[in-house]
Amino acid sequence: MTTPVRYKFTIAYRGTHYHGWQKQAVPASYEGEILPDHDGIPTVQEIVARALMHVLGHPINLVGSSRTDSGVHAKGQLAHVDTDQTQIPVEGLRQAVNARLPADILVRTVEPVPMTFSAVRSTASKRYQYAIWNALDRSPFLGELTWHRRQPLDVKAMREAARLLVGTHDFASFAKPGHGRESTVRTILDCSVSSRGPMLVIGVEGKGFLWNMVRIIVGTLVEVGAGRHPPAAVSTMLAARDRRAAGPTAPPQGLFLQWIKTREAGAVPVPLNA
Amino acid sequence: MTTPVRYKFTIAYRGTHYHGWQKQAVPASYEGEILPDHDGIPTVQEIVARALMHVLGHPINLVGSSRTDSGVHAKGQLAHVDTDQTQIPVEGLRQAVNARLPADILVRTVEPVPMTFSAVRSTASKRYQYAIWNALDRSPFLGELTWHRRQPLDVKAMREAARLLVGTHDFASFAKPGHGRESTVRTILDCSVSSRGPMLVIGVEGKGFLWNMVRIIVGTLVEVGAGRHPPAAVSTMLAARDRRAAGPTAPPQGLFLQWIKTREAGAVPVPLNA
Repeated sequence: MTTPVRYKFTIAYRGTHYHGWQKQAVPASYEGEILPDHDGIPTVQEIVARALMHVLGHPINLVGSSRTDSGVHAKGQLAHVDTDQTQIPVEGLRQAVNARLPADILVRTVEPVPMTFSAVRSTASKRYQYAIWNALDRSPFLGELTWHRRQPLDVKAMREAARLLVGTHDFASFAKPGHGRESTVRTILDCSVSSRGPMLVIGVEGKGFLWNMVRIIVGTLVEVGAGRHPPAAVSTMLAARDRRAAGPTAPPQGLFLQWIKTREAGAVPVPLNA
Repeated sequence: MTTPVRYKFTIAYRGTHYHGWQKQAVPASYEGEILPDHDGIPTVQEIVARALMHVLGHPINLVGSSRTDSGVHAKGQLAHVDTDQTQIPVEGLRQAVNARLPADILVRTVEPVPMTFSAVRSTASKRYQYAIWNALDRSPFLGELTWHRRQPLDVKAMREAARLLVGTHDFASFAKPGHGRESTVRTILDCSVSSRGPMLVIGVEGKGFLWNMVRIIVGTLVEVGAGRHPPAAVSTMLAARDRRAAGPTAPPQGLFLQWIKTREAGAVPVPLNA
């Protein structure tokens, strides 16, 4: 009998045509909201799992780290899978899976990890990026990868507000109600705002995130950048512990899961221009 | 009676979902090739003309400068249109048309021009860009805007070959047969190759181009970059005056019509990152 081996995968995808990474479980506190119908649109996990099963020749369970929402992209999603197929060289496995994947999904890396590694439990921190196209005119090329904001945004004010989010806080105001988690206390390790030409990028790094947390942070920072709130208002919003206190939820198409750091295997950073 | 006014438009579009700028006229020498069925996919010209008619309130004839092929993009297509509606401020007209256009088409500029101006006849020169994603792995984000070439390309060799194309030559080897033009002599003003990370961009500027000429130039330069021909082979290819002498035709999705210079109105340059 062969001893099974566990592989860690880092996966990039353009989320535009997928129903997120994985079908969402219904949280206990979902409170009557109607679940979206998937309309036959597949999840990224389903597509990658099908390619992997074909290459490995047996059923598998592909466990992902982040359940990215419908339309959200990833540069470095993390997943693990177990197999008895230990004879395939990892680069051969990676290329065979990529050959079976559509053009908008890519397995970046495959590496063997100890069976104690888990894409869910070994996650130490992760970073998201949110891309805003800040110009009077929309971009005809990047519309599905950015959020178009016409009003000029004050990057300095946004940076000041972003600094107030760093640290350990109760982020109840920055979470979609019905998130199904007991505590709404989270730690933000970094929150940065950079801009080059019409492109404005917000980076948020944390140990863990609540449902829609990054998109609500972005929606709030954009309100600050547009002058509708002073930067200091963010502290008042945090203190309120009420979703209605913070800004709107930014749309999914500007959001990228940039990388996930794990306790065992170190960071999986992916360059910005990838 | 109002005197009609002529407007010059510069238009950007992502060509992915369109059947090119305009339905192609069948050249006299099409020689039995079967015309592609449009399958109900609209052209960019049809979509922009419909939006313009709605805003102006009368039938119009939108005349474009370059008949970009299916799947080819534009940062600065040029067009003109006549109207009796002279009371609409140009910026108001521009924004009203943009509000009626899909997210992947944008009117960048509108300006009144003399009735002697013609998007076709006033063209002095134009520049195309071709984007190549040169890396082992495809880009899950830019697949519809680049041509993926896995083999590392020698930029220096490509530049050397590019230089040999500059000037006035018979480009019969670099044109799709059946182009329906009498002379295959054209003047290339500039042919440059630049690279940053995995992105390689070929720029080609000329007074006029034959059918598929830029895509055949790109296909040929890529063969030189891959070491299949020495740079000097380009001169032999030109001298052959035979399509079979040059390299393959690069696919449409990496091609952008960057700008068009006109005799009357000067250049319409659009920044690379737009």
